[in-house]
Amino acid sequence: MDISTYINKLGHQAKAANSLVANTSAEERNGAIRSVAEVIQNQSQKILAANKEDLSKAKQNQLDSALLDRLTLTEKLIVSMASGLTEITKLPDPIGIVEPPKLRPSGIRIGHMRVPIGVIGIIYESRPNVTADAAGLCIKSGNVVILRGGSESFYSNQAIGQCISDGLRKASFPDNAVQLIATSHRDAVGSLLRMDHYLDLIIPRGGKQLIHRVSKESQIPVLKHLDGICHVYVDISADQKKALKIVDNSKTQRFGTCNTMETLLVHTDCADEFLPKIAKIFHEKNVELRVDKKGKAILPESFVANEKDWVTEYLGPILSIKIVDSASEAIKHINKFGSHHTDSIVTEDKKTADNFLKEVDSSSVMVNASTRFADGFEYGLGAEIGISTDKLHARGPVGLEGLTSLKWIVLGDGHVRQ
Amino acid sequence: MDISTYINKLGHQAKAANSLVANTSAEERNGAIRSVAEVIQNQSQKILAANKEDLSKAKQNQLDSALLDRLTLTEKLIVSMASGLTEITKLPDPIGIVEPPKLRPSGIRIGHMRVPIGVIGIIYESRPNVTADAAGLCIKSGNVVILRGGSESFYSNQAIGQCISDGLRKASFPDNAVQLIATSHRDAVGSLLRMDHYLDLIIPRGGKQLIHRVSKESQIPVLKHLDGICHVYVDISADQKKALKIVDNSKTQRFGTCNTMETLLVHTDCADEFLPKIAKIFHEKNVELRVDKKGKAILPESFVANEKDWVTEYLGPILSIKIVDSASEAIKHINKFGSHHTDSIVTEDKKTADNFLKEVDSSSVMVNASTRFADGFEYGLGAEIGISTDKLHARGPVGLEGLTSLKWIVLGDGHVRQ
Repeated sequence: MDISTYINKLGHQAKAANSLVANTSAEERNGAIRSVAEVIQNQSQKILAANKEDLSKAKQNQLDSALLDRLTLTEKLIVSMASGLTEITKLPDPIGIVEPPKLRPSGIRIGHMRVPIGVIGIIYESRPNVTADAAGLCIKSGNVVILRGGSESFYSNQAIGQCISDGLRKASFPDNAVQLIATSHRDAVGSLLRMDHYLDLIIPRGGKQLIHRVSKESQIPVLKHLDGICHVYVDISADQKKALKIVDNSKTQRFGTCNTMETLLVHTDCADEFLPKIAKIFHEKNVELRVDKKGKAILPESFVANEKDWVTEYLGPILSIKIVDSASEAIKHINKFGSHHTDSIVTEDKKTADNFLKEVDSSSVMVNASTRFADGFEYGLGAEIGISTDKLHARGPVGLEGLTSLKWIVLGDGHVRQ
Repeated sequence: MDISTYINKLGHQAKAANSLVANTSAEERNGAIRSVAEVIQNQSQKILAANKEDLSKAKQNQLDSALLDRLTLTEKLIVSMASGLTEITKLPDPIGIVEPPKLRPSGIRIGHMRVPIGVIGIIYESRPNVTADAAGLCIKSGNVVILRGGSESFYSNQAIGQCISDGLRKASFPDNAVQLIATSHRDAVGSLLRMDHYLDLIIPRGGKQLIHRVSKESQIPVLKHLDGICHVYVDISADQKKALKIVDNSKTQRFGTCNTMETLLVHTDCADEFLPKIAKIFHEKNVELRVDKKGKAILPESFVANEKDWVTEYLGPILSIKIVDSASEAIKHINKFGSHHTDSIVTEDKKTADNFLKEVDSSSVMVNASTRFADGFEYGLGAEIGISTDKLHARGPVGLEGLTSLKWIVLGDGHVRQ
């Protein structure tokens, strides 16, 4: 079977499973997820063996240590993969009527029902635990999913995929609810992106290159997670103690995440006082600073930033710093150079804070808080399928609700339109 | 200037206007819309003269009478265009904080702010009043819009566009908030669809061909309004009087709209009684009936439907009829052959109704009501930019809220992540 025929077959099977899954009860869906968690737990040795194959291939291909790190599974990680699934079963069921229908002047009553989106394609890289997470979230929300993992974690994904199929079958759940593409051929992605007759949504998770390819090629709506060029702006009226804590935490609590601060903006009137203090902290934590001209005068030992720095997601211990003349210059910089992900202001001035909240065009806008809070769990979503940098449908951390759609329900008693 | 350079210039200007418009107050936006309404009212003769040019071109090109009808403006229609704008100013402002932020265990408070989407492109055909409607809705919701009307209404649109520009300028509102593409060259659409660096959303309104082209070519998210193959299913437990009223109204209240019924499904056990009665009504109203085999036995004078009929949007006085053995067969037929737009069941059985509501995968699902109710005004949205057949973002009638996005706001007091 050629690749396009194979992918088409998966699409056809997914569509067929769609209505079966949409008609399951919340209890059946939770039971299926619990069953998958059990099989994953029981088959941990098989998964670890498959992961070893991926790791030895990765070492042969000289993948860098960050990638190897993300790829590596351990007994502990498998336990947490299984317990993550169990946690999903404890979340409230997202499906059903939203609130009592409202009476309209015509006599009909109008309401909203939250329903699954349908068939979702998820294309992801490296971390094999996404296979289990994504499957769990899609089942929970009554969706059907086709998963396409990265080639570097091919064997691990296949092993986890096998556990998912076994788990679903054991629970007498439609086993085509979750299908994993069993080839790492690049053409499989192209075929998937053309199946707008079967798929309702594509979610890409991975590097810029992947996201750009998917956005460009997809004929299916895409919910994308692009880069996080996040800012903290320290205002003239900032409490310096809070500012030090927030700026430090936004950069160093974890370097490699999308909600990590990549550019620090400081008001010119507090830069003399603030920059040396924060530079000392960063120096101790081995964070390289790249400052603009004005900053160089205050921190003469730092590197000089160029235009490219303002649009770079370092994902590592590097920070660019720019001194601005006003909150409004900071907002302009963020809207121009940022990635509309997460940006925070440190200020004690309510009006300045309100302006910042209103004018910064990002999925999460914060006042006196670390950018690292931009996260589905921290926001109370209970789980996260990704952080959307799109403006439509779901913006910022996407939980179960982002995997659903609202349909209108209309209740009459023989009503007709005049 | 070549077309791509010209469209790019519009995009650049739109983006620049975006932050200006986002920072206007609700009162400024309403003032701008009122000013546009006034200019349209005052310039009605100019608009009518331009419309005459379109009409004479249309007659030369032998456009059909339905198209000519949609294209024709009258003094009365211009008054209603202006008053439609005034109505928009009376709608509540959709922008701002949604509800008081909620406290999380970490100490931060999390909320949602409803914000404009940004820069929207609207591509539409025939009806010139869309130019004014769309401009009004976009201004009201704080968005910036680039409009591209159909070539057949080119002069009318340009005249209305000129009124919009004049109105905005008189109100000292950023006049690039609404830009009308001043060429009917086909390449302009292609250039627009590639400007994902300037545009956040494309809304196509028009025939299937247009929608397909836009979905295929666009690198910008699309909110589309495809065809309406709407069904009414008359269940075994239907109240026959209600059924007659609803089926009649769903088909004949207006033939050419997307929420008009195109296929009638009738339970086999009530078909003998129901079909002759409804056929009599349709016969008097000159509606052609195309029935399946079983229906032919009951209505021997009707045409026989073929497979193509189940997927045809007639937009005229033709109706296909199929007899089904159960509610679940009706649901299967609707999900397979329908367009996920609007479908209604007539039944007195609550369980059957609930199943129908749950299982029919359409943007509007109705019980004992005419499909013709699927409309922004009837649903209480106050206005409508279109009816989305997409599942993401906005589904069904799209009002002002569909032109907005939710961003997260996070309020802390020096909070950092542990």
